[in-house]
Amino acid sequence: MNCLSSRLILKPPLYSTLTLNFPSINVPFYSKPISIHQKRKLPANTAITSLVQYPLSGAEEDLVGYVFGKKKATEVAHLIWKRVVQNGDTVIDATCGNGYDTLAMLKMVADESGRGRVYGMDIQGDALKSTSSLLDESVTWKEKELVKLFSICHSRMEEIVPENSPVRLVAFNLGYLPGGDKMITTVSETTQLALEAAKKILIPGGLISLVVYVGHPGGMEELETVEAFASGLSVDNWICCKFQMLNRPLAPVLVLLFKRIWMDSSQRGS
Amino acid sequence: MNCLSSRLILKPPLYSTLTLNFPSINVPFYSKPISIHQKRKLPANTAITSLVQYPLSGAEEDLVGYVFGKKKATEVAHLIWKRVVQNGDTVIDATCGNGYDTLAMLKMVADESGRGRVYGMDIQGDALKSTSSLLDESVTWKEKELVKLFSICHSRMEEIVPENSPVRLVAFNLGYLPGGDKMITTVSETTQLALEAAKKILIPGGLISLVVYVGHPGGMEELETVEAFASGLSVDNWICCKFQMLNRPLAPVLVLLFKRIWMDSSQRGS
Repeated sequence: MNCLSSRLILKPPLYSTLTLNFPSINVPFYSKPISIHQKRKLPANTAITSLVQYPLSGAEEDLVGYVFGKKKATEVAHLIWKRVVQNGDTVIDATCGNGYDTLAMLKMVADESGRGRVYGMDIQGDALKSTSSLLDESVTWKEKELVKLFSICHSRMEEIVPENSPVRLVAFNLGYLPGGDKMITTVSETTQLALEAAKKILIPGGLISLVVYVGHPGGMEELETVEAFASGLSVDNWICCKFQMLNRPLAPVLVLLFKRIWMDSSQRGS
Repeated sequence: MNCLSSRLILKPPLYSTLTLNFPSINVPFYSKPISIHQKRKLPANTAITSLVQYPLSGAEEDLVGYVFGKKKATEVAHLIWKRVVQNGDTVIDATCGNGYDTLAMLKMVADESGRGRVYGMDIQGDALKSTSSLLDESVTWKEKELVKLFSICHSRMEEIVPENSPVRLVAFNLGYLPGGDKMITTVSETTQLALEAAKKILIPGGLISLVVYVGHPGGMEELETVEAFASGLSVDNWICCKFQMLNRPLAPVLVLLFKRIWMDSSQRGS
């Protein structure tokens, strides 16, 4: 297992060509390769050279600001997205709100190729108008064309994303529309359905990101729904973590669900 | 408030001499200066130029690895410590265990001046022996002299740290000694007392760091004790955050309690 745990492979599109050795980097969660055989019902003699691919970038940025109160949960979320999302990707803003996340995502996927897509949705017309206006102010017409906005519930995301689209990120801001009607909020039932849909369409190496605003009636219940969903995801295939401020009970909670990439030796670079 | 929120002051020893402008950096939790007057019972005309001092370093490192499963909670903790601890500081390893944290801390405080001190404690003699052996193997005799080891409960830390020592870090690993007797664990009652002691002796700008191993009987109760303690700390004076893996219920939980630095205009640099 040592030989495995000392190897990390760069993220796509460098999948199959580049392998780095980081002998000092600890790769947790891989201490029991036999359990992978068992859980995946693989023949005992299958070479478990399967490895998670970590999004590595040359110079790493920072989440430390969160600890020291410099960065908000949403800013931390954006930093993480940047590690995962690439030009040309398909991503989903499950709750457009005022459009700041949609805009941030667009900047991450847009490039010359015009392949990138942002599918945005919100049940409130005002949210979509705000998002559209923000995009008008901030990006070119050509870039805005990459964003597709839909006035539907996020639980129906599968209906709007073309089949076989490689969705790299599904982002949620759970709660109410800032500046809007605080009585209109996301709710546990549809959030649960939306999470199940997101899980289904996300590609390995993708991320489900949730900023959960708990300061409204039903907010805590919704957080519990998210936590229960995350707790049920397989450790083999998902890394699920939660960042929370302990002495600010109404501060938003950040939940990140990262879908691992497994590769067998035939896919690995040398 | 804009003028305040756009200014950050570098950490000691640069306190009083250097002020930087970061117009784009968001400084949360400071949107209501008047409440600071009220809560601190300051005269209404006191210039609230008080600001938290953030440990800034030139090139920031990373916690992102935690999200992607690259880094363990203990490694994340060490990264955070490095942002806080400086050469010459006094720091406390409240649970020496096998000494890895003690060693890491020593490397952070040791310098030519010989002012740095690491006060280490553990109720188990074997833990102190392991720590001492690790230091023998890893550091010079002169460096080891900066470490003071005590066979006492961490709830009594105030007894061993000289009065008026500026304690910058108190670190806990809560649970049992790895490789030792798993029946001997830290317990909620003394951990509570130790946290209160740590709170008392920590200087502003200092950090209480806890890696809570919950995979033993009593582990969850101890985590609850830590969370309750953190939840009770004033938002004005403490930033308290928790990092947790949601689909690995027995994975260690990282809790970081950062004591803010407030300064009035007389202390600020120009």
